[in-house]
Amino acid sequence: MSSTFGKFLTITTFGESHGPAVGVILDGCPPGILLDPETIQHDLDRRRPGQSAVTTQRKEPDQVEILSGVFEGVTTGASIALMVRSVDARSQDYSNLKDLFRPGHADYTYWQKYGIRDYRGSGRSSGRETVSRVAAGAVARRILERDGVRVRAFTVQVADIAALDRDLAFVEQNPVRCPDRKAAAEMERAILSAREAGDSLGGIVETLATGVPPGLGDPVMDKLEASLAWALLSIPAVKGFEVGEGFASAMMRGSEMNDRMTPEGFATNHAGGILGGISNGEPIVTRIAVKPPSSIAIPQKTMDRTGHERDFAISGRHDPCLCPRVVPVAEAMTCLVLADALLRQRAIEPYRPKAGV
Amino acid sequence: MSSTFGKFLTITTFGESHGPAVGVILDGCPPGILLDPETIQHDLDRRRPGQSAVTTQRKEPDQVEILSGVFEGVTTGASIALMVRSVDARSQDYSNLKDLFRPGHADYTYWQKYGIRDYRGSGRSSGRETVSRVAAGAVARRILERDGVRVRAFTVQVADIAALDRDLAFVEQNPVRCPDRKAAAEMERAILSAREAGDSLGGIVETLATGVPPGLGDPVMDKLEASLAWALLSIPAVKGFEVGEGFASAMMRGSEMNDRMTPEGFATNHAGGILGGISNGEPIVTRIAVKPPSSIAIPQKTMDRTGHERDFAISGRHDPCLCPRVVPVAEAMTCLVLADALLRQRAIEPYRPKAGV
Amino acid sequence: MSSTFGKFLTITTFGESHGPAVGVILDGCPPGILLDPETIQHDLDRRRPGQSAVTTQRKEPDQVEILSGVFEGVTTGASIALMVRSVDARSQDYSNLKDLFRPGHADYTYWQKYGIRDYRGSGRSSGRETVSRVAAGAVARRILERDGVRVRAFTVQVADIAALDRDLAFVEQNPVRCPDRKAAAEMERAILSAREAGDSLGGIVETLATGVPPGLGDPVMDKLEASLAWALLSIPAVKGFEVGEGFASAMMRGSEMNDRMTPEGFATNHAGGILGGISNGEPIVTRIAVKPPSSIAIPQKTMDRTGHERDFAISGRHDPCLCPRVVPVAEAMTCLVLADALLRQRAIEPYRPKAGV
Amino acid sequence: MSSTFGKFLTITTFGESHGPAVGVILDGCPPGILLDPETIQHDLDRRRPGQSAVTTQRKEPDQVEILSGVFEGVTTGASIALMVRSVDARSQDYSNLKDLFRPGHADYTYWQKYGIRDYRGSGRSSGRETVSRVAAGAVARRILERDGVRVRAFTVQVADIAALDRDLAFVEQNPVRCPDRKAAAEMERAILSAREAGDSLGGIVETLATGVPPGLGDPVMDKLEASLAWALLSIPAVKGFEVGEGFASAMMRGSEMNDRMTPEGFATNHAGGILGGISNGEPIVTRIAVKPPSSIAIPQKTMDRTGHERDFAISGRHDPCLCPRVVPVAEAMTCLVLADALLRQRAIEPYRPKAGV
Repeated sequence: MSSTFGKFLTITTFGESHGPAVGVILDGCPPGILLDPETIQHDLDRRRPGQSAVTTQRKEPDQVEILSGVFEGVTTGASIALMVRSVDARSQDYSNLKDLFRPGHADYTYWQKYGIRDYRGSGRSSGRETVSRVAAGAVARRILERDGVRVRAFTVQVADIAALDRDLAFVEQNPVRCPDRKAAAEMERAILSAREAGDSLGGIVETLATGVPPGLGDPVMDKLEASLAWALLSIPAVKGFEVGEGFASAMMRGSEMNDRMTPEGFATNHAGGILGGISNGEPIVTRIAVKPPSSIAIPQKTMDRTGHERDFAISGRHDPCLCPRVVPVAEAMTCLVLADALLRQRAIEPYRPKAGV
Repeated sequence: MSSTFGKFLTITTFGESHGPAVGVILDGCPPGILLDPETIQHDLDRRRPGQSAVTTQRKEPDQVEILSGVFEGVTTGASIALMVRSVDARSQDYSNLKDLFRPGHADYTYWQKYGIRDYRGSGRSSGRETVSRVAAGAVARRILERDGVRVRAFTVQVADIAALDRDLAFVEQNPVRCPDRKAAAEMERAILSAREAGDSLGGIVETLATGVPPGLGDPVMDKLEASLAWALLSIPAVKGFEVGEGFASAMMRGSEMNDRMTPEGFATNHAGGILGGISNGEPIVTRIAVKPPSSIAIPQKTMDRTGHERDFAISGRHDPCLCPRVVPVAEAMTCLVLADALLRQRAIEPYRPKAGV
Repeated sequence: MSSTFGKFLTITTFGESHGPAVGVILDGCPPGILLDPETIQHDLDRRRPGQSAVTTQRKEPDQVEILSGVFEGVTTGASIALMVRSVDARSQDYSNLKDLFRPGHADYTYWQKYGIRDYRGSGRSSGRETVSRVAAGAVARRILERDGVRVRAFTVQVADIAALDRDLAFVEQNPVRCPDRKAAAEMERAILSAREAGDSLGGIVETLATGVPPGLGDPVMDKLEASLAWALLSIPAVKGFEVGEGFASAMMRGSEMNDRMTPEGFATNHAGGILGGISNGEPIVTRIAVKPPSSIAIPQKTMDRTGHERDFAISGRHDPCLCPRVVPVAEAMTCLVLADALLRQRAIEPYRPKAGV
Repeated sequence: MSSTFGKFLTITTFGESHGPAVGVILDGCPPGILLDPETIQHDLDRRRPGQSAVTTQRKEPDQVEILSGVFEGVTTGASIALMVRSVDARSQDYSNLKDLFRPGHADYTYWQKYGIRDYRGSGRSSGRETVSRVAAGAVARRILERDGVRVRAFTVQVADIAALDRDLAFVEQNPVRCPDRKAAAEMERAILSAREAGDSLGGIVETLATGVPPGLGDPVMDKLEASLAWALLSIPAVKGFEVGEGFASAMMRGSEMNDRMTPEGFATNHAGGILGGISNGEPIVTRIAVKPPSSIAIPQKTMDRTGHERDFAISGRHDPCLCPRVVPVAEAMTCLVLADALLRQRAIEPYRPKAGV
């Protein structure tokens, strides 16, 4: 079940980098959700390669097909299958990597685990798998919209350049998807410069969920932050997760960290919208660390399957910084977690003794 | 299923802070593992309150009872139930908090979610629930030991004091469980001083797993780092997780981050022992951010259930810094994740085409 | 996870025949359900050994203890742990069976599977494990009662004696739990006579759920009948399951089997209350085949662990027919399945486009 | 997760009767299994409509496409997606049924559950969904073959005609898939006669698994018979399940039912190859009751969505008896259950203290 995520609303994904298609089955979606292919395509287009100079030049139209679960434009409650055919696969690019373990990639570990690996592109470990997540996440987003929940992600750091501003209207207007005009321009320059040097850059993506009602998230093991961490760390290249103050809380005192409750609501949001694993009604704020892509043009030394050292340089088309394309994936996974939590809360709501301030 | 963690090897926990008992059912444990109560008790004693001046003074013997799954000192393959009776509950301490939402606690969110809450201590959201995790983790540790996997955690930061050294032999010799002699003394002083001020401190706990064979972890959704993040973020008070370089990788270039493979093994371990969600044979290194405890003696303002502002101060016995007691819990959760991954890998090993350098 | 049943409302059980305790964690129970120990005890007393001459004479008070999840008599939404201590274990009765594989028992298969077995009583494979199910089922029953769903089981066949009548008021007034006065008396005589002969009898238990709203059950894999079959076949000694006409439908024509719909409801109930895996509002009727108990006093030949044939006779206290004690277990499992389905339906109800005749 | 079956080896299916495609993701398949499309196609062809006069005349080539998880003809350990495009859908056949609830069908219950239904054919509740099961089952069959496990199903009863012989070589040589020459001819005549009368017939399908090693199946909730019952009752039109003597065991005495163990193996197989939920090395024998198809040409009365009675007659192309086409589905589900159990047993085998006669 390692290709399945979620408990009530689940996704199960399939597809390799250079296989005929990638796709997903979304199960547990309630009936009555309006769903047209354009909704899904919109998010897929944001993830698509070849959007700008700061992303890979691989060309994939990534056209989604809805195979089931929707009737006359509305979800029926049945499992929803979404598929995207691969077009620009060029598997010949990779034949020379058959016996090599590329540094930073999963070549060596897949081979150790399975004794066999699909060496075309990165096979199952490719970032192409996230097409499935984005497609399913678009459906989850529709579920959430019905309750006014809105999920946005954006790049807040690339290398040592940090976004100070959070101008959400600007996010989709720059190729880096940064909410700070000044930082966005610097980030873009830094990425292009790294690409020219044959190198790559890391960064941080922040996700913001607003309109989340209090009460979502299930203690003890399915705390909202635990589910989000699971979801976001399952995205390729993500090396860290934090919610609210996150690692900064290690340096804080209880008297600073505690968000004071007032009759008007919480005075601050150090907790990042979650207390004890349950949403508290404040915006949910998470951040993930995205490592620099492993595929770089600079020549590297590595090992082959026979245990010999080899010189090699990657020649394919690769992303110099993953953040811009991780943004829609982080949104998708966050939508899936929140919609799952929302549906689970729906199940117990009718039993809930009346609470209210 | 929100009290269940794991896929093949699962734990399901129960118990409230001031209920009659806390406990766990560990299911999926293989037969033939030697298991005596002392093994489990040893880890529980490390988690127990009242160990030193830097932890809460609540006194709980936390004596474990094995209720099933073990016959003549050996696991049988049946589900293993472990229970710890509560002794020093003092639920009278909490009656005045019945209508109050303590800042930083889950009082408000439980009440919003369920419309009812067990206000004695923190009920189900209490750190006392981690007794169950530590007990089950001790069994997982025995499974791992058979293959030479060893899991250690320790405090690497308290407030702004960071451990530079990693002297593992020193960890259990100081109340902070810090692997750096100099930092340990400073941390202890800082914690005592915060307690005297009626305040609390945050910190960072690092976990190190050595001897992990390559091949553990299941793509795509059950990547080893995703499972670890889920496991560790489900521990109360944890606000962040990172593996390997973690958030530092945001500032690195691909040419720095990639761990070079040589015939003698990986030259560096920036990845933290995991590539593409699968262990690569290097030590697995994770870090979690632990927020300062919310229960502080300093008077605070908050809200009650009728929506009125209230002054209040917590009078119970509380931890001024959670790191020392989170250490055994982080170990337990890491052991559970790795043992689960190990058993899952066992299932496919006989089918694996022969791989090898 | 093989000791866990259910998807949304789950039970995880533990305990061996002669271990210190048996018990269960029920997770996913909504808040606000009134629950006192007497409710649970009532069902446990119906399952308890030593109730009459037609059941085993082993004496167990089977006193339940609620360890968590209930506060001031009401469920809180937290996991509910229920435990029953064993008292009359007499493990010395079984030491002579250490090396023997009793015919019809799981001795041989547990030993083949695990390479080790708890030979006291039947260890984990004992019918004593059903204490856990009955205790948890009593909670599920409370959830269902809130919506007017009522679940009753009864013995409809013992050997070749079939109940023709369905006088539910009479069920708990006779030791066989048969809803037919005449058949009940004959069944009792047949059981006592088999016991005297050192032998045992099989039978059939029917379960009837009334007041079930239409819409419960989840296609495709969690069809209501599939979940019920899973639930009921997991009870020791059950060898068959049918719903509605069941095996008799093999002999029917479509024109007979189809239940005609009229404005007043279904004219017949050949389907047994389920169409396409979803409840249709009619009573849900299932039947299970219960094999004759394997433990008989008649001397038998069997094999020991060294592969030699051995004569042996069972001397312990055993049930001559399991049906009377399977009745509360069948009710419990049916309640768990229906409550699980009800809660899952609750989750999607708010999204359901308005339907109605 | 209601479209997912299995615990370690899982299938998740999608697709409606008249949607663009049906398919499945099989997850947890080990690497190294040889898999070509022909293997899968062979089983699909056995399930395909239009094979003979005793099945529906709907024409579907049911051509399978492998979308992922296989590289150079060998499974890689990644999730395997299999898809079949629909060709001969003719959704116009069904538009007149938009507001009707066909008797015996799931029209009414889907509408009650979801408030919306795909009325083309039977939508998600259609038998067409079993294409997915058969495709995935073919892969499971390959896993089992490696260990010499062989799974065969056949029709043993149609109406009141029972197969006495078990000539497995004859099964695929007659359109009814009956292992008894004489009964096969009678069954065929009976089915054709029922079709001519505009009616339909029920029957019984038996499944036989040979070469099953002892030790498969997981107590307590995942007993092998419970998993098989869940699997087989999830097939549309199945109303009953039994293992070994099944319902006949209700009439047996313990002294008859117990299978005597001898140094040469079990002397009888009343248990049907399973003791205590675990395989005992004998053939596993199950039977399922298949109801007569609900779609009959005879005019019937029923109800429409506005609550009015309506006359109607089904005009589409339908199966007069489902048994011949249920045979490959029963095999597929049995293969999936056994392969899942085998992989789970693999996980604990290395820990098993050495057992052996």
